[in-house]
Amino acid sequence: MTGRDGGADLRPIGHSPVVILVRPQLADNIGAVARAMANGGLFHLRLVAPRDGWPQQRAWNNASGAQRLLDALTVHDTVQDAVADLHRVFATCPRPRHIVKTVLTARGAAAELREACNRALSCGLLFGPERAGLDNDDMAQADALIRYPMNPAFTSLNLAQAVMVMAYEWWQTADETLPRTLMTNETQVATKAKLENFLTHLVDQLDACGFLRNAPKRPGMVRNLRHLFQRGEITEQELRTLHGVVTELALGRRQRGRLERDMIEKI
Amino acid sequence: MTGRDGGADLRPIGHSPVVILVRPQLADNIGAVARAMANGGLFHLRLVAPRDGWPQQRAWNNASGAQRLLDALTVHDTVQDAVADLHRVFATCPRPRHIVKTVLTARGAAAELREACNRALSCGLLFGPERAGLDNDDMAQADALIRYPMNPAFTSLNLAQAVMVMAYEWWQTADETLPRTLMTNETQVATKAKLENFLTHLVDQLDACGFLRNAPKRPGMVRNLRHLFQRGEITEQELRTLHGVVTELALGRRQRGRLERDMIEKI
Repeated sequence: MTGRDGGADLRPIGHSPVVILVRPQLADNIGAVARAMANGGLFHLRLVAPRDGWPQQRAWNNASGAQRLLDALTVHDTVQDAVADLHRVFATCPRPRHIVKTVLTARGAAAELREACNRALSCGLLFGPERAGLDNDDMAQADALIRYPMNPAFTSLNLAQAVMVMAYEWWQTADETLPRTLMTNETQVATKAKLENFLTHLVDQLDACGFLRNAPKRPGMVRNLRHLFQRGEITEQELRTLHGVVTELALGRRQRGRLERDMIEKI
Repeated sequence: MTGRDGGADLRPIGHSPVVILVRPQLADNIGAVARAMANGGLFHLRLVAPRDGWPQQRAWNNASGAQRLLDALTVHDTVQDAVADLHRVFATCPRPRHIVKTVLTARGAAAELREACNRALSCGLLFGPERAGLDNDDMAQADALIRYPMNPAFTSLNLAQAVMVMAYEWWQTADETLPRTLMTNETQVATKAKLENFLTHLVDQLDACGFLRNAPKRPGMVRNLRHLFQRGEITEQELRTLHGVVTELALGRRQRGRLERDMIEKI
């Protein structure tokens, strides 16, 4: 995935929000932010007055394949300049402030960003410096604040982690993966008829070996086995294995029985 | 939030999943994982065969207040030992494998974990080593795999970032924050009557200064202003400010007008 020179061949995916790091302190974090953005399909990065100047090699070292985002980023003197060409700007703000402002969850913000981008509006996400976060003037540049619902006993979020949450939520807004699927590769989930075929084989062998000899309990025991095997969306490949397992176990038992009879005869 | 010795006073919140790092390589990452877990309200951490042994001071240095999780973690020789007391185990797996297995999204997994924890089942999340991820034997210990829907062109996820996504999704399953709210602090959203009162004040002043003198256009212009001010969920405090703004602007205009008249008289 990561090339030898310059990292992965990343490009903008459709219309996507700009991530704006305001007065970021550590170049390591800027690299980690680029990586998190790439994970979520974000591409456009802007820096406002990075503390240690720009460029910084440490950012490239820490981008793990997302160097293209660093190559393409722009640096701005002020937040005002960084948002000038945008239509809609959200500011992340972990702590409540005494201002009148719309507050969005990360998920709510992602949904609104997707909607705005679908209307071809240019959108931006402001993230504050590591230690202090955005100041009141920064936040006055934004349409709304984003506050992640997270453990109130521990709200200190690393900068790249904060970007990760928004990048992740951004990607989810356009993703249609089912919450639960069965990966079956070459095989497929067996039909009820094929499962029944196996259960008949199993019960036949259990009858043969005497496991089900208690007649009053037999229906309940068979039903319990049936419930167990119905639970797992068994594949055709697994059914073949199970047929083999039952056959071999039964064969082993018969051979052992024959061996025991042979020994008794010899005595 | 973070104490001076040992970090924040973190404790387990209800019944929550165990995070199991399998053969983790970097102590820095283990510290960052603890921090991400604390953000999402997770507490129980287990290590399986950490590469550089345990304890490692670098983990504590990198936990940013979540040291309590490191103090409380347990170290295990094998995955089998680390999951022995658990009822339900999910394994994170970024790449598809040739196995028959249920695959969950991060969100789907979080919902199932919450449901299982609500039934008082002990649950675990397996995360593989930084470079290679979990191997096939590790994954055979799990009920299901978790694969995050993320940018397929860039799936390489930092270990702490991977934990962050699950911790974040875990917290969301029990969070009821509305996606969008208006933070108003001491004030509140104004009633329609109070907004109408302001609009009357504004239109009166605009009539007085002649801004609305074009009679055929007047209704449309007034309606446009009305649409604008209806859009913003204006608070009572903001309405007071707006009343003041209109009054002062009109007063300024009258004073300037008087000044101009005075000057003309003097000439």
